[in-house]
Amino acid sequence: MRLRMQIGYDGTDFAGWASQPGQRTVCGVLEETLSTVLREPITLTVAGRTDAGVHATGQVAHFDVAAATLEARSIDGDPGRLVRRLAKMLPVDVRVKDIEEAPTEFDARFSALRRHYEYRLADDPWGAEPVSARTTAAWSRPLNADLLEEASAVLLGLNDFAAFCRRRDGATTVRELQDFRWMRDDFGVLVAQVSADAFCWSMVRSLVGAVATVGEGRRSVQWCAGLLQQRSRSSEVPVAPACGLSLIGVDYPADNNLAQRNSITRETRAAIDPNGCCGD
Amino acid sequence: MRLRMQIGYDGTDFAGWASQPGQRTVCGVLEETLSTVLREPITLTVAGRTDAGVHATGQVAHFDVAAATLEARSIDGDPGRLVRRLAKMLPVDVRVKDIEEAPTEFDARFSALRRHYEYRLADDPWGAEPVSARTTAAWSRPLNADLLEEASAVLLGLNDFAAFCRRRDGATTVRELQDFRWMRDDFGVLVAQVSADAFCWSMVRSLVGAVATVGEGRRSVQWCAGLLQQRSRSSEVPVAPACGLSLIGVDYPADNNLAQRNSITRETRAAIDPNGCCGD
Repeated sequence: MRLRMQIGYDGTDFAGWASQPGQRTVCGVLEETLSTVLREPITLTVAGRTDAGVHATGQVAHFDVAAATLEARSIDGDPGRLVRRLAKMLPVDVRVKDIEEAPTEFDARFSALRRHYEYRLADDPWGAEPVSARTTAAWSRPLNADLLEEASAVLLGLNDFAAFCRRRDGATTVRELQDFRWMRDDFGVLVAQVSADAFCWSMVRSLVGAVATVGEGRRSVQWCAGLLQQRSRSSEVPVAPACGLSLIGVDYPADNNLAQRNSITRETRAAIDPNGCCGD
Repeated sequence: MRLRMQIGYDGTDFAGWASQPGQRTVCGVLEETLSTVLREPITLTVAGRTDAGVHATGQVAHFDVAAATLEARSIDGDPGRLVRRLAKMLPVDVRVKDIEEAPTEFDARFSALRRHYEYRLADDPWGAEPVSARTTAAWSRPLNADLLEEASAVLLGLNDFAAFCRRRDGATTVRELQDFRWMRDDFGVLVAQVSADAFCWSMVRSLVGAVATVGEGRRSVQWCAGLLQQRSRSSEVPVAPACGLSLIGVDYPADNNLAQRNSITRETRAAIDPNGCCGD
């Protein structure tokens, strides 16, 4: 039986999503807790393998477990029981918010149509509001929101984002950037919504770093547009701090289109990137 | 010269506002940093002496400094310079957001007309969203927002809040509760706005604890109303966790009404409470 989970975490004290020996990772903590509760080894597949310090409110992962195991643990028929049991065991910086049965074709990574990220950037001279400092990056110079918007708009569409990606051998850096908008919230923090079919490693933080360089007046919008012509990572693009970034949601097709979506993803992307592209 | 500051802090790692020997307190960190920058001992007077673990986005304090001192440190005429200098020295969990010159009659504590607090309470079975867990308390049972509203409404007005206050000898517990409303935010968190002329020690957290007891169905609205008849702290009122509470703002009269306001506050409250009422 395949179960799909919605997950939130404060990434501050995690060495990212992916399990690494000797490190505290989100995947490591979740797999360990699930394995304890279900009394069998659980392996998670995730929609977006976030880096160290990156947060999530809408991460999605799936795992397989025998129906008999759920029955033996008295959580068959009501995944909400597993949610409550995990809530008692997990540390406060990671939560499983929802668990539901999914079709066996559902794959948290390969079935995903779209990933949505949010980036929070404070340009006040005094830095970020302390109550949200863990999820807000501070930019030391004032940023012009109109310039941020302009620079972001030129990056939209199906492009080669090589200038914004840490390269993996043979991996494609062509992605479709579907949304990249900025607004100031009630506290004056600049909040970006960034959506794409998938992201390469460090891509969202590099996009933010590039347009912030325009927003502070150091570079032109034309410079930003020109980055799309480059075929390798640009040293002119700063990578914005991890703490400002949160994965806020992942879109999936309806159940009857899962198999088709999985094969498209595998063909266009994973075939040439056997180890998977960090970030997703 | 009197300077007025607006301050924000994440109270998680502070033993409250008030300086205590051997403890990390907000007042202690700010006084130490200001004294270092200005090279003379600075003493702060604050609007609301928040407890350990309580946060602020709109705390207000004042201090006095000789004009010659500001001149010597090259920050005369532009308090924004002091804001930027402090930003470089203060830890990320406390920020001075604004400094401006104030009339000598301005007193952060005695001139205050009204304090505004916010309380964040998550009643999801999985607890609080990790990215906001430091500023959100978790309630283990589901809460009915309508009942919260009803119970809160009966407490409004000029009342003796003895049942909700940790008593100080001789201190009055009569306060005017001007606002106490609840709403669910986009993430399903119950957020209360609580405003009064002033608050006694532990009053906001006790108000929240009492109405949450009604909201979960364990007590009636009538029980909540009856608490106003009690003349001492009620053991039936739970004190909600500190982490959910933030001081979000303080109102002051126009400059020409400061002296009058100070004398009203002193007469009606401080005269019978010489050590000051914790919380304010």
